[in-house]
Amino acid sequence: MVVYRAPLRDYQFLFHEVFDTCGVARKLGFDVQPEVVDSVVAGFGEFVTDVWLPTNAIGDADGCRFEDGDVTVPAAFKDAWRKTVDAGWFALAADPDHGGAGMPLFVKTALDEIAVSGNMALSTFGALCAGVSDLIRDHADEEHKQLYLERICTGEWCGTMALTEPHCGTDLGILTTRAEPLSDGRYSIRGTKMFITAGDHDLAENIIHMVLARLPDAPEGTRGISLFLVPKFLDDGNGGLGERNAVACGSIEKKMGLHGSPTCVMNFDGATGFLVGPPNEGMRLMFEMMNRERLATGMMGLGLGEIAYQNALAYARDRRQGRDLRGPREPAEPADNILVHPDVRRMLLRCKANNEGSRALAVYVGLLLDQMRRGEGEDRRRAEDLVALLTPVVKAHLTDLGCESASDCVQVMGGSGYIREFAVEQFLRDSRIAPIWEGTNGIQALDLVGRKIPKNM
Amino acid sequence: MVVYRAPLRDYQFLFHEVFDTCGVARKLGFDVQPEVVDSVVAGFGEFVTDVWLPTNAIGDADGCRFEDGDVTVPAAFKDAWRKTVDAGWFALAADPDHGGAGMPLFVKTALDEIAVSGNMALSTFGALCAGVSDLIRDHADEEHKQLYLERICTGEWCGTMALTEPHCGTDLGILTTRAEPLSDGRYSIRGTKMFITAGDHDLAENIIHMVLARLPDAPEGTRGISLFLVPKFLDDGNGGLGERNAVACGSIEKKMGLHGSPTCVMNFDGATGFLVGPPNEGMRLMFEMMNRERLATGMMGLGLGEIAYQNALAYARDRRQGRDLRGPREPAEPADNILVHPDVRRMLLRCKANNEGSRALAVYVGLLLDQMRRGEGEDRRRAEDLVALLTPVVKAHLTDLGCESASDCVQVMGGSGYIREFAVEQFLRDSRIAPIWEGTNGIQALDLVGRKIPKNM
Repeated sequence: MVVYRAPLRDYQFLFHEVFDTCGVARKLGFDVQPEVVDSVVAGFGEFVTDVWLPTNAIGDADGCRFEDGDVTVPAAFKDAWRKTVDAGWFALAADPDHGGAGMPLFVKTALDEIAVSGNMALSTFGALCAGVSDLIRDHADEEHKQLYLERICTGEWCGTMALTEPHCGTDLGILTTRAEPLSDGRYSIRGTKMFITAGDHDLAENIIHMVLARLPDAPEGTRGISLFLVPKFLDDGNGGLGERNAVACGSIEKKMGLHGSPTCVMNFDGATGFLVGPPNEGMRLMFEMMNRERLATGMMGLGLGEIAYQNALAYARDRRQGRDLRGPREPAEPADNILVHPDVRRMLLRCKANNEGSRALAVYVGLLLDQMRRGEGEDRRRAEDLVALLTPVVKAHLTDLGCESASDCVQVMGGSGYIREFAVEQFLRDSRIAPIWEGTNGIQALDLVGRKIPKNM
Repeated sequence: MVVYRAPLRDYQFLFHEVFDTCGVARKLGFDVQPEVVDSVVAGFGEFVTDVWLPTNAIGDADGCRFEDGDVTVPAAFKDAWRKTVDAGWFALAADPDHGGAGMPLFVKTALDEIAVSGNMALSTFGALCAGVSDLIRDHADEEHKQLYLERICTGEWCGTMALTEPHCGTDLGILTTRAEPLSDGRYSIRGTKMFITAGDHDLAENIIHMVLARLPDAPEGTRGISLFLVPKFLDDGNGGLGERNAVACGSIEKKMGLHGSPTCVMNFDGATGFLVGPPNEGMRLMFEMMNRERLATGMMGLGLGEIAYQNALAYARDRRQGRDLRGPREPAEPADNILVHPDVRRMLLRCKANNEGSRALAVYVGLLLDQMRRGEGEDRRRAEDLVALLTPVVKAHLTDLGCESASDCVQVMGGSGYIREFAVEQFLRDSRIAPIWEGTNGIQALDLVGRKIPKNM
């Protein structure tokens, strides 16, 4: 029953009429034409509508399974993931050196939204790949770049961010996972992480965990946390799958929504890890990934708000109940279309306005990301500052709006909004995680007001 | 993991310190003492906490089954229902003539809230019994009162309200279910109803459907709708179960929440029905029940808001993350309690304030219901007008607040709020139907502003 059309015209308007994205990108050295950008977005829209969207309700109904220590995702996801990897969609904005197509990041804004609309659960795996590949690109040593970068950029292998522990989520300063140095320069990681999205699954043969842990004698608090790369399977010496590492899923959570994305307890039981970046600099490094995921989470609010809106609008266009307060609009019909009712229009137009505003903000930040990565001097610094300032805004505001929109869309559809057959109740359930993870929206507020606003005062 | 304590002190405060409920009730002829009222509420609180609450998560996980034309509720519900019937809780406010205890309706306010907190799905069956028994008491003929009234008052048998059809929910004027008069004064009912809460189930041996249908040559629109009583099993002539009537469940919906309460498509295939009240007066009569259900739905918002709050508060009291912005509150602990964070306090205090305000409004309306039923002259008219005015306010405002509170409580609990183990995500899913059914909250707004406010101008 679900309907979806990628908002191509909206992106064309923002890309070419509001922001001159291609002009800016060309100045940054990208070889990018409006027609190419539009056709990439349109192509991905078609791909997601055909390949991802039909798997979304299946993923919700079937969920993930945890048996004999292994996590299995819904079977339909495997096929959709494979096709996405093969088509090269995940690597669109990655460097050509790492198997990518070298597109600017503003283009990826559109793709992120569309992916979430098609299947938010499946999109979480991709969002993690993007964050982990950036971390490896910027901070891992050459050997690990060689081993992992291209395969994670393309989605051939997957990644995770392993921060949260049972006693600490927001407050990472009290985390207790330990990293003992081994004689060969590697580390033995021991501890339990929880709420690890895509911690184990069968979409990819290997999963690369980015793990926060403490070295012996590390300072207390957040200044004593280091970042480690812990692969599910170690290298066999030829770039292939070697020995299974001592990291395993202990259980998966039963959640309100996002059933197709496994939320794992991960046990590191003397797992082999590799230090990424300098010792005790883990929080700073991980927050590069965290900030990337915060923007991606904002897009989750938008992606779900958009598809919820499209479905509520389609339902409203079809449904007849009652009469226009000013008199019957279509007297020959048994009732007028519900779009005549002011409250229905109010709810739908609020969703539309919030989606369009959110999208504009997202494209603006997407273009800033390109300026931050490719720009120079003052331009680059300005882009960095603006991205820092707007990251908590995008994360919190777009996810709050996404939940509001999904809830309004349920309301527009009445009883049909509440039942699985009409898809929108899933969007509401899926959306409700977004104001929580990657730092609750209350934490985003603290970040904005306590850190970002006074930063350059 | 779920915690709950019935808000006894709150009700004592409202009953005896704010409203002098017993004084008012005694003037209306009730023989009611504060100590008795308090012990009834406390007794029901204990009963629900012991008997209903443990079945709530089971009902959510197991849901209802539809097999071979019959609906089965979660097994745990049957035992809980039986104990409630046997203890006489359902009949507390019913007349002693009908197996009841004759308590004032304001007392039932507290019971309605507590029942929802314990198990909203199970409470829906009881709310329908109360509405159907009122309809039968006030409008059915003597034979049907004899047959059904006591058994529905007590919960021995159950009831439904069958209004909605696939093409009409809000707009009942276009309903098409037909009632053909038979030679013996009975009627043959044909049509399909949908979204019928508790349309079929195995909690009770018999189910009495209150059905809206059109007589031949009835006027168009809402003026041509009559009310019929359609039992699942006809009388055997001795008050026992006779022939199975031609009414059957066609399917049940898969819903966002409220999994323990079956939402049925009901097919009336020449079912034997009995006219209740005068022909073509069905809408007026059914709206007596509808208004009762609207108030009960408001209590659903409150009941879920309250138990969500209690669980979020219990979690917050136990959880340590971060430090008080003014400096560590408990330096010897690894982190302060999350209650030190202003945003956590804001969310919890908002829930608490909304729950307490909602409860005060509910008790006020409960007392008005007693005045409406037992009062005389101007006092009675005033109570009727106030109940009419406040019914859409209670329904819409309390259900909106219930959803907001449940969502805030999820947020307070972070990731734990999103997982089933901590119960609150179920309260949020269950709460989301309440702004929709018994007239969406947009319809309540139209009723308030378009009808109730100008009524006595």
